[in-house]
Amino acid sequence: MRIALDVMGGDLGPRATVDGAYLYLKEAPKDDHIVLVGDQDLIKERLKHIPEKYHKRFSIVHAPDNIGMNESPTEAFKKKTNASMVVGLKLHASGQADAFVSAGHTGAQMAGSLLTLKRIPGVKRPAIGSFLPSEKGMVFLIDVGANVDSKPIHLLQFALMASIFVGEVFQQKDLKIGLLSIGEEEKKGNALTLAAHQLFKENLPNFYGNVEGRDILKGKTDIIVCDGFVGNALLKMAESVMGVIVKAIKRNIGANLFTNLGALLVKPAFSELKRSYDYQEYGGVPLLGVDGISIICHGNSTARAIKNALRVAHEMSSHQVNKRIAEKLREKELNNA
Amino acid sequence: MRIALDVMGGDLGPRATVDGAYLYLKEAPKDDHIVLVGDQDLIKERLKHIPEKYHKRFSIVHAPDNIGMNESPTEAFKKKTNASMVVGLKLHASGQADAFVSAGHTGAQMAGSLLTLKRIPGVKRPAIGSFLPSEKGMVFLIDVGANVDSKPIHLLQFALMASIFVGEVFQQKDLKIGLLSIGEEEKKGNALTLAAHQLFKENLPNFYGNVEGRDILKGKTDIIVCDGFVGNALLKMAESVMGVIVKAIKRNIGANLFTNLGALLVKPAFSELKRSYDYQEYGGVPLLGVDGISIICHGNSTARAIKNALRVAHEMSSHQVNKRIAEKLREKELNNA
Repeated sequence: MRIALDVMGGDLGPRATVDGAYLYLKEAPKDDHIVLVGDQDLIKERLKHIPEKYHKRFSIVHAPDNIGMNESPTEAFKKKTNASMVVGLKLHASGQADAFVSAGHTGAQMAGSLLTLKRIPGVKRPAIGSFLPSEKGMVFLIDVGANVDSKPIHLLQFALMASIFVGEVFQQKDLKIGLLSIGEEEKKGNALTLAAHQLFKENLPNFYGNVEGRDILKGKTDIIVCDGFVGNALLKMAESVMGVIVKAIKRNIGANLFTNLGALLVKPAFSELKRSYDYQEYGGVPLLGVDGISIICHGNSTARAIKNALRVAHEMSSHQVNKRIAEKLREKELNNA
Repeated sequence: MRIALDVMGGDLGPRATVDGAYLYLKEAPKDDHIVLVGDQDLIKERLKHIPEKYHKRFSIVHAPDNIGMNESPTEAFKKKTNASMVVGLKLHASGQADAFVSAGHTGAQMAGSLLTLKRIPGVKRPAIGSFLPSEKGMVFLIDVGANVDSKPIHLLQFALMASIFVGEVFQQKDLKIGLLSIGEEEKKGNALTLAAHQLFKENLPNFYGNVEGRDILKGKTDIIVCDGFVGNALLKMAESVMGVIVKAIKRNIGANLFTNLGALLVKPAFSELKRSYDYQEYGGVPLLGVDGISIICHGNSTARAIKNALRVAHEMSSHQVNKRIAEKLREKELNNA
């Protein structure tokens, strides 16, 4: 398969993206090919660091512009026709690439993906999830910000799309699905979750029930569904917690000579912990529900994260995740609900 | 003033509540008096541990029942007329006590406070906040679960009540108020926050603007306002994060002898950190908006937390927080909005 990679997106630029593509190709099936989309001079420069024998598995599409973090997503997407994200998504939409991966402007990628790829038949709203580390492995929280003011039917579709994606791409069986609410009892919640709870009960054999905020990191379920406003606030707070705690520990540790020594000794364990809380190790996540494969990576993705994101794109394609989503919605008769 | 204290509520029982009352009286103005509401035998037993000269500053009201954590709040409140929470709140409502403090069933206390004390004129919905430790001191997040499906006017009232409470009780000036949303720009948010943003701009001179999930613990503002569904999920997740991290560190540390030694040395710093993340050190928080003083404490409150909660009750009264709330709503003409 051919995967278009936005070389310009992300804080680390070609060093992360081109190198990530190389790391991916070293392990990928022989017929996988990466289309590097971005400034051709920068790309060629960076390719010099990649072993010659891999060069035939790359092609370059010149697209020197980049969408800045402060630009309006939809406007930028329409105006900046030479931006790597625009060109890359169009390559995918026109069939010249089978998937698209970017660590660029997330809002622009979501808006652009929807514009160019359209929705899978039956899907009302695309959604984006995020992996969080839990006490029992990873948990997939969806939606973390593609939508606000969701309706119950949207949450049900998020649940179905997420279980197909996580089940197929990460080969997990019997996934338990939780609905985020403010109490475990089915009568606890707001208007949205009370109605969604009933829909989930009727349509999801693997519905666990409501889960509370305190359960998210406990791994009671594999997937947790919520409105994108709530998921976005939760995700961003979770991401910041580790930083706050590290700072607090440093502050505390400074106060005491003995603990200063201790800090030195405990440091390796701490780095390991920090890594395990670094969600980008999972690579990227697809914008679920668009009729194509658009993998969204964190802005500060490393080469390793890009490699993993390319792998997610590959698995999305080889397991026909989108086809299965369309089938499931038809089967549940949710495609016209 | 006379403060009614629910002796039976909370996981630690009279040992925390009676002892907490004693700790409070040691520091409180001489005319403060605590009405101990609960099983009189248990109370008398525990009072034996309190120095004789303080006994005249306690009185006992026998109320042997307790509302269990699994009981329906409103029903339990109506049926269990001998429950310490019911008796205590009625003492306050009838004027025999000037405030009520409990570490019992939070839901029952919220429902019961509203039933017995009613609302401050003009307040549409009472709300409850919680102090979270931030990089720059404490931040007050409101609402954390008294309401779901809030309207913009509710959020504005939460903001006003919170700034009067925090400003008066903790003597803080120039409090900055943030509105939780999914982006800093005023056009980012859901239907609720987009409308609330405009209301805040018009009515709150100290409105900072939108804050994101990642900013909550950074202390960009002193108060953060959100709907109770969102606040509840965020608060419960924040509470669980520390536990998850401690477990992860223990797991990691076990893997290495050197870090094991380090753990021993770093332990004091870590306990201190854990304490600073233990919100119950702030005592309790009032259910803001009811026409009385009902201080809600965490179920596992220690004697020290109870002491602090009693102090909050005292300050609420001496600074006339409720009167100021009513005045502010009249001034802003929000009392009939």
